[in-house]
Amino acid sequence: MSDLVGCYAVIFTNQLSGNADGYDATKDLMVELSAKQPGYLGIKSVRDGVDGITVSYWESEDAIAQWKANADHAIAQAQGRNKYYSEFQLQVCRIERAYDFKAS
Amino acid sequence: MSDLVGCYAVIFTNQLSGNADGYDATKDLMVELSAKQPGYLGIKSVRDGVDGITVSYWESEDAIAQWKANADHAIAQAQGRNKYYSEFQLQVCRIERAYDFKAS
Repeated sequence: MSDLVGCYAVIFTNQLSGNADGYDATKDLMVELSAKQPGYLGIKSVRDGVDGITVSYWESEDAIAQWKANADHAIAQAQGRNKYYSEFQLQVCRIERAYDFKAS
Repeated sequence: MSDLVGCYAVIFTNQLSGNADGYDATKDLMVELSAKQPGYLGIKSVRDGVDGITVSYWESEDAIAQWKANADHAIAQAQGRNKYYSEFQLQVCRIERAYDFKAS
């Protein structure tokens, strides 16, 4: 994904609250729906217990704004604040440089 | 960290090769040394088996360049490519917007 320069990343670092009722289904649906959004480029996500980092990649800030405003996503965002996360940090970033490595 | 706007994030997504000899010590040393660099703002890291995401935060692109050029870090970077990682992706990003949430 070295062609990401000029595109955007959304960094979402989070801690789960422990109230996981429906979390996996909601998360899976959001991964599925986000991939259908215009301007979606990809997602990377890692969780270790309560600690998670998800980075999603987008063609433009407008694509991010459209995904933020998606109705199902808006419901999931509210559930995230009200139930699933004890805390999270979100940054919208413009990718200035990118480098990929793959062992030969 | 809502005051991150205008600062920089380095997103490092990676897969370990399975050759972990010395990996933990090298990683711990890099976390320790990076925190001493001028312009360092913080780090978040999550690993699940071979899959890892680390995001480090910096005041400026110059601070990132200085850390990249650090002698011990240069050795660790070479070890990363030659031994520890089967693949990785690195993006240097300018933070355009930031939002923090903490449950009350």
